[in-house]
Amino acid sequence: MCVKCMVGPAVNGLSVRTVFWNMDVEYMRVTAKQVAERAGVSVSAVSRTFTKGASVAPATRSRIQNVAEVLGYQPNAMARSLMTGRTALIGLVSNNFNNPAFMEIFDLFTRRLQDHGLRPLLVNLSDDTDPQKAVAMLQQYNVDGVIVASSTLPPAFITGCLAAHIPTIHAFGKTTPGNPVHVVSADNLQGGRLAAEVMLRHGYRRIAFLGGPLAASSTEERLRGFRAGLQQHKLAPACEVFANNYSHGEGHALMHAILADHSIEAVFCGDDLLAMGALDACRDMHRTVPGDMGILGFNDIAMAAWSAYDLSTIRQPIAEIIVAAVELSIQLVSNREVAVASRHFACTAILRNTLRQL
Amino acid sequence: MCVKCMVGPAVNGLSVRTVFWNMDVEYMRVTAKQVAERAGVSVSAVSRTFTKGASVAPATRSRIQNVAEVLGYQPNAMARSLMTGRTALIGLVSNNFNNPAFMEIFDLFTRRLQDHGLRPLLVNLSDDTDPQKAVAMLQQYNVDGVIVASSTLPPAFITGCLAAHIPTIHAFGKTTPGNPVHVVSADNLQGGRLAAEVMLRHGYRRIAFLGGPLAASSTEERLRGFRAGLQQHKLAPACEVFANNYSHGEGHALMHAILADHSIEAVFCGDDLLAMGALDACRDMHRTVPGDMGILGFNDIAMAAWSAYDLSTIRQPIAEIIVAAVELSIQLVSNREVAVASRHFACTAILRNTLRQL
Repeated sequence: MCVKCMVGPAVNGLSVRTVFWNMDVEYMRVTAKQVAERAGVSVSAVSRTFTKGASVAPATRSRIQNVAEVLGYQPNAMARSLMTGRTALIGLVSNNFNNPAFMEIFDLFTRRLQDHGLRPLLVNLSDDTDPQKAVAMLQQYNVDGVIVASSTLPPAFITGCLAAHIPTIHAFGKTTPGNPVHVVSADNLQGGRLAAEVMLRHGYRRIAFLGGPLAASSTEERLRGFRAGLQQHKLAPACEVFANNYSHGEGHALMHAILADHSIEAVFCGDDLLAMGALDACRDMHRTVPGDMGILGFNDIAMAAWSAYDLSTIRQPIAEIIVAAVELSIQLVSNREVAVASRHFACTAILRNTLRQL
Repeated sequence: MCVKCMVGPAVNGLSVRTVFWNMDVEYMRVTAKQVAERAGVSVSAVSRTFTKGASVAPATRSRIQNVAEVLGYQPNAMARSLMTGRTALIGLVSNNFNNPAFMEIFDLFTRRLQDHGLRPLLVNLSDDTDPQKAVAMLQQYNVDGVIVASSTLPPAFITGCLAAHIPTIHAFGKTTPGNPVHVVSADNLQGGRLAAEVMLRHGYRRIAFLGGPLAASSTEERLRGFRAGLQQHKLAPACEVFANNYSHGEGHALMHAILADHSIEAVFCGDDLLAMGALDACRDMHRTVPGDMGILGFNDIAMAAWSAYDLSTIRQPIAEIIVAAVELSIQLVSNREVAVASRHFACTAILRNTLRQL
């Protein structure tokens, strides 16, 4: 059955082994018409059999269902959507595909949406994707709603969704007065304040802030809370530096600069990835953590608990945020006149081994 | 404008701050009929304006396009799909949402699909999701094709896609003779053989295999190649253990068992996550790497290069695999009679710091 097995052509200098199979495969969709013909009924009877609440004689329905199963027929969700005005498609939009935190977020989002019969249409808004084209695409597929999962996305995208009259939920976003977007996120302000309290309680006074991108609402709010927490003790951050993105590489590079100032005792990082990069910079410079330097992260991703890092961090309740966002999107799909509300979930401190003992 | 700001009710013991906004938001889709009325033309003229190759007088087309832009109208992809038989939807199916390797994979897949005007409809087949229901859903949305990105998925899902006459590509899968599925993956057999060669060259003789789930094609093929590579030097794996899934926790637990046998000099791990778990187990047991124990991973995910791990590994060319899978899916969408072929990309060795120096 194997027609030929060949090596090459090489792709990027790597050899590729290709095996061809000599098989004819037919990819033909089974239509309602075929089911109707086989069952000896009208196409409309088939359509009514697969429409909730439509009337069909029980014997006819049963015959049609049997034929449909034998042929492998499934009703066309697109055709149905033209009648009902609902597609059960939810646009799931992010620009954070490189962050392991979003692995957990995508896993939870897709599971919850599926549990409710909703289908995630994925949009990757990283870098060079044109937000306006993405909005147009979501309109064309007539999505019932959009969930934006990002704190670093330009506001233009959300404004575009609203202008296109698409119900939009911003998960991990920030409430902007006058902007009618449903926001479900961590209470980043409270989280930043908690970070300050925890670090002060561990005896640190000269504390740097190593944040995410300045334009991200998460960075701005965590920093504001952190400053307020220190301010209560008449202190301020020893320095404030900002990464171009939430990544290990940026945390690593910025921490090298912070280590040059030997008066700094500890660093509050804008997320766990930055904190892991900072920790690896200490490792490379032979500075011990927490002996020589205290480090506190934000998020509590799975990797924070791994022995290589054992990272103390401020936990945002990701699962609770996602459950709330999906529930809200279900409400919006069934009743589009839900009052616009923002929900902010409190953060908690997870103490592991990167802050010195009391 | 803020109607009320309240705290609570608490969710899982966490306080939630909710802010309500008093705004009426209208989520009404702009229809072709509205555009036709405003432009003073027929609905059919609007439809033709947005159908490639359809004939409309230039002046009419221009008037309709202006009105569409003012109203924010977008043609309905669903309605169009009923005429063309193409939805430009590609089902992107995986069960590996917890593996950071798949972050990179999703990022690349969604970008490449978007670049070609295709839309990823995401299906999470983790744990308790019924594969048959997922296939039915993909049929209902009339996807043009399915890309399965997993080496651990039960074959029943792929068989189901074929039975439903959906063109299916298995990325990171295994060629099964007689099974008309397009496979694009690493050459895991060659990768396993390369692992053996590298470890033998570094002077190791008593080498354990710490693999992924035995049912995964990736595990089976890497082990087979590894055994063959050792066999050439009249050696065999010192022991073979298998994780329930590719995860840090499983690698950590299994490595504890391996460390009990003090004759074992090195471990070849089925992927980088297992290797990182194994490395952390050594760290916890105060066994140095590579001083006391050599470790080799598989994949070369971004984290493998972080200082905390600095992991030597067998690299599979993920980007090349994804480019090939997306190109194949485009071919299948435009011409469903593409000969079924399997492409296996060669792996390379990335030497960092977890094997002893020569």
